Amino acid sequence: MTPYLTLERLFARLRALGDAAGILGWDAQTLMPTGSAEGRAEQLAALRGLSHELLVAPSTADLLLAAGEDALDPWQAANLREMRRAHAHASAVPGDLVEAESKASSVAEMAWREARARSDFALLRPHLEEVLRLAREVGRAKGEALGLAPYDALLDQYDPGLTRARIDPVFDALRAELPDLIRAARERQAREGAPPAVAGAFPVEAQRSVGEALMRTLGFDFARGRLDTSLHPFCGGATGDVRITTRYEAGDFTRSLMGVLHETGHALYEQGRPAAWLSQPVGDARGMTLHESQSLLMEMQACRSPEFMRHLAPVLAGAFGAEGAALTPEVLHRIYTHVAPGFIRVDADECTYPAHILLRYDLERAMVDGDLAVADLPGAFDAQVKALLGLDVPDDARGCLQDIHWPGGAFGYFPTYTLGAIAAAQLFEAATAAVPEIRPGLAEGDFAPLLAWLRANVHAKGSSLGTDEIMEGATGRPLGIDSYRAHLRRRYLGEGVAA
Amino acid sequence: MTPYLTLERLFARLRALGDAAGILGWDAQTLMPTGSAEGRAEQLAALRGLSHELLVAPSTADLLLAAGEDALDPWQAANLREMRRAHAHASAVPGDLVEAESKASSVAEMAWREARARSDFALLRPHLEEVLRLAREVGRAKGEALGLAPYDALLDQYDPGLTRARIDPVFDALRAELPDLIRAARERQAREGAPPAVAGAFPVEAQRSVGEALMRTLGFDFARGRLDTSLHPFCGGATGDVRITTRYEAGDFTRSLMGVLHETGHALYEQGRPAAWLSQPVGDARGMTLHESQSLLMEMQACRSPEFMRHLAPVLAGAFGAEGAALTPEVLHRIYTHVAPGFIRVDADECTYPAHILLRYDLERAMVDGDLAVADLPGAFDAQVKALLGLDVPDDARGCLQDIHWPGGAFGYFPTYTLGAIAAAQLFEAATAAVPEIRPGLAEGDFAPLLAWLRANVHAKGSSLGTDEIMEGATGRPLGIDSYRAHLRRRYLGEGVAA
Repeated sequence: MTPYLTLERLFARLRALGDAAGILGWDAQTLMPTGSAEGRAEQLAALRGLSHELLVAPSTADLLLAAGEDALDPWQAANLREMRRAHAHASAVPGDLVEAESKASSVAEMAWREARARSDFALLRPHLEEVLRLAREVGRAKGEALGLAPYDALLDQYDPGLTRARIDPVFDALRAELPDLIRAARERQAREGAPPAVAGAFPVEAQRSVGEALMRTLGFDFARGRLDTSLHPFCGGATGDVRITTRYEAGDFTRSLMGVLHETGHALYEQGRPAAWLSQPVGDARGMTLHESQSLLMEMQACRSPEFMRHLAPVLAGAFGAEGAALTPEVLHRIYTHVAPGFIRVDADECTYPAHILLRYDLERAMVDGDLAVADLPGAFDAQVKALLGLDVPDDARGCLQDIHWPGGAFGYFPTYTLGAIAAAQLFEAATAAVPEIRPGLAEGDFAPLLAWLRANVHAKGSSLGTDEIMEGATGRPLGIDSYRAHLRRRYLGEGVAA
Repeated sequence: MTPYLTLERLFARLRALGDAAGILGWDAQTLMPTGSAEGRAEQLAALRGLSHELLVAPSTADLLLAAGEDALDPWQAANLREMRRAHAHASAVPGDLVEAESKASSVAEMAWREARARSDFALLRPHLEEVLRLAREVGRAKGEALGLAPYDALLDQYDPGLTRARIDPVFDALRAELPDLIRAARERQAREGAPPAVAGAFPVEAQRSVGEALMRTLGFDFARGRLDTSLHPFCGGATGDVRITTRYEAGDFTRSLMGVLHETGHALYEQGRPAAWLSQPVGDARGMTLHESQSLLMEMQACRSPEFMRHLAPVLAGAFGAEGAALTPEVLHRIYTHVAPGFIRVDADECTYPAHILLRYDLERAMVDGDLAVADLPGAFDAQVKALLGLDVPDDARGCLQDIHWPGGAFGYFPTYTLGAIAAAQLFEAATAAVPEIRPGLAEGDFAPLLAWLRANVHAKGSSLGTDEIMEGATGRPLGIDSYRAHLRRRYLGEGVAA
C-alpha cells in the first residue's frame, strides 16, 4: 500500500473516532443522566487522547512526508494537504500544554457559570487570565509551526487560511457604517410601530412538528439525522448522522423555530459533504465562516425573506389554530426583522448582531496581542457596547460575562459569525441571480432549487479549496462586504425595494 | 510507576473505550436514524479494533508478566488475574480469524433475518456452517491458550470458569424431572381454569410511568441510568450510565412490565459494582450466570411472588383505572405463573423455559464437537422439542431459526440463562432466610432489605472471586439445583406451601 493510501486508512479511523465522540457529545447534551458526566468525560478524553496519539505518531509524520512522492489526483492532493494541516496543528503543541489548556478551560468554564450567575467578574478573572496565558502560548507554538502570527494561528484552528489581514478591511468597513445603519433602521421601524407581541399557547409537540416539517421543506434527510431538545441549541452528531437540537418555550415559538432553521442550514452543509470523501479530511466542511454562512443563509437570507413568510403563515395557522392564524406573512416579517439593540449577543437581531462581534474581535485580538489585560476587559467591553450600540451595560453578566467562548479557550472563533453572515449574503445574491426559481420557490416551500445550487457550489467542494476559492467559484469574487451591505440596506432601510 | 499501576491506567482507558461503545450500541438500538447504520458500524469497529490492539500489544504482555513481581493486595491481585484473562482471550485468536468471524456472523445474521421471515432453513445453512466452522476454530485456539476443551473455551468467554463438567450434572438432573414437572403443573392449573386474558387499553405513557415507578421501587438510580424503548429489550449503556429498554404493547402491559423488572435486575447488578474498581476488570460483573441470576431473581423470585402482587395490584389500578382494578393480586399471580408449553423461547413461562435451554445446550455442544452437522440441526431440534415439551414444531421459524445466537456466533451462551435461574433461586432462598424483612418488604414495595443483601453478597464482589466462590460466600454452597427444584415445586405444584 502506498504511503498516501496508508494515510487514508489512518484518517478514516480518526474520522470514526471523531464521529464516536460526536454522538457521545450529542448524548451528553440531550439525554445523559445527571450523574454520568464524569464517566462521559473519561470516554471523550480517551477518544481524543488516542486520536491525538495516532495523529502525532512518528510513523504518521514519515507517511506525510513520503506521500508527497505518490502520484495523486487533485482531490487526493488536497486531502494530503488537509492531513498535513491537521498534523501540523496537532504536533505544534506539546502534550502537556494541550492538557494544561484543557484543564484550565474546564476550570474556567465552571468559574464562569458561577461568575455569570452572580455577575461577579472577579470570580472569573484569575481563571480567564490562566486560559488566556495558555491560549497565547498555543498561538505562539502553532504560529511558529505554521508561519503565522499567534492570533492568526488561533483563527486558523477554526477557519483555515483566515487571518487578521483578511478580516480587518471587511470589519473596518462594517464598523464605519453599522451605528448609522442601526439608527436609521430603528427610526424607520419606529414610524411603523412595534410588531405585535407573540404570546400564546404554542404546544411543544406542535412546535416540534412544525420544526420537523420545515426541516423537510429545507431538504433535511431524516434517514441521516434527528431533531432533539437541549438547553443550548447546536448541530452535532456524526458523519451521516447529523443531529440538531432546539429548546422550546410554550408561550413563544418564534425563537425556537428560527433556531431550528438556522441549525438546519448547518446540517444541510454536513449532509451535503462530498460522498466519496466522507471519511477523509478533504471531505470536511471548509471552516466556520462557510459553516456559519450556510446556517445564516437559511435563517437570515431565505427564511426571514418576505417570500418565505408566505409559506410559513399557513403552516403556523395549521399548527397553532387561531393563535397561528393571526400571524399573517406581513406580521411575521415584521416580527422576524425587528431591530432592537440589546445587551445579549445570542438574542440580537440580524441588524445589531454584527456589533456584538466587532467588539469581541477587537477585544480578543488585543488580549492575545498582550494589549489588553483581563483586568481591563469589563471596562473595555462596556465602552465598545456604548460606542457601537449606544447602550450602557448595567452589569458584567450582561456584558463581558455573557459568553462561554473565552473561558472555554476559544479565542479566534467570534469573527466567523459575522464573516458567515457576510458570506451568506454574497452566496444568496449569487444563487438567486443564477437561478430565478429560487426566490419564488421560498414562497411555495420549494427549497430544491436553492439546495441544488448550494450543494453544487459549496457543500460538494468539501475542503478541496480554500474559503475564498469557494466564494470566488460560487459568486465570482472573494468574500467582501458589498452583498451584505446591500442586503441590510434593502431589508432594513428599504433601499432598492419597490414600495 | 510500577508495571501493575501502568496496567491499571491501560485498563481504565480500555474501560472508557468499552463504555463509549456501550453508549453507541445503545443509541443504535434506540434512536439512531435508519441510514446511519454503516457509519455506526465503522465507529464501533474502530473502538473495538483499537481496544484489541492496545490489549494485545507486546508491551502489555511484558507488563502482565512483570506485574507479578509487584506487591499487590488481594483486590489488585484479582485485578491482575482478570487482566491476564482478558489478555489471554484476546491474544489467543489471530487478528484475521477475529475479523473473519466478525464478518461471517454479520453476513449470517442478515441471512438469518431472511431465513426466519420465510421459515427457510436452506437460506441460513451455508452461512451457519461458516460461522460454526470459525467458532470451532476460535474454540480450539482459545482452548489451547487457556488449557481448555474448545466448547469450554467458548463458555469461558461468557462465564469465566464455566465448563461442561460443571454444567452436565446440573442439567442432567433437570432434564430427568422437567417433563414430569411441566405435566404436573399443567394438570394442576387445568383444574383451576385459565387465568383471565389481559386485553384492554393500557396507554404506553401510563405503562412507562408504572415501569419507572417500579424501577425506583426496586432501587434503580435514575441519576445513573435511563429507561427507553427498543425493538429488543436489553440492559446496556456504560459504567455509571446503565440504560435498559423495553417494548410496549398498548393492549397488554404484562410482558413489557415484567421485562422492565427483569432488565432492572441486570441494571442493579451494574449499578452495584464495587465503586473503587469501576474502571478495572476486577470491578466487572462476574459473568453471565450471575448476571442472569440478578435479572431472574428480581423477575422470577421477587416480582412473580404472591407478596409482590399485593404491591403491584394497587399500582396498576392507579395507572390503568378500571382495567387495572380488575387485576387483583390473585389474578395477577395466576397470570404471571401460568404454564403453557410453546415453541418460542423468549415467550416461554418460567416452568417450561429451561426445556428450551437444555435442548439448545445439547445441540450447540454437539455442533462444536463435530457430532451434529448444521444440515441435521432442524431435525434434531424438533426431536428435542417433542421430547421435552411434547410439541410438534410446525416450521423452522418456530424451531431452530427462532434465535439470533448461533448465526451471531454465540455458541456457549445459552446455558447461562438457566444456570442464572438456578442461581437466582439459591440466592433468593439464602437472602430470605438470612433477612426476614425481605419477603414482607416485597408486599410493601420495600426492596431495600433485598437490595442491601444482594449488594453485599453479590454486586460488591465484582470479579474478585469466581462464580462458585461468590455463590458459596452468599449461600453456603456452590451452585446446585436444590433451591431451584424446591422453588418450582412450591410455586407450580404447591409442595411445601400451606394451602
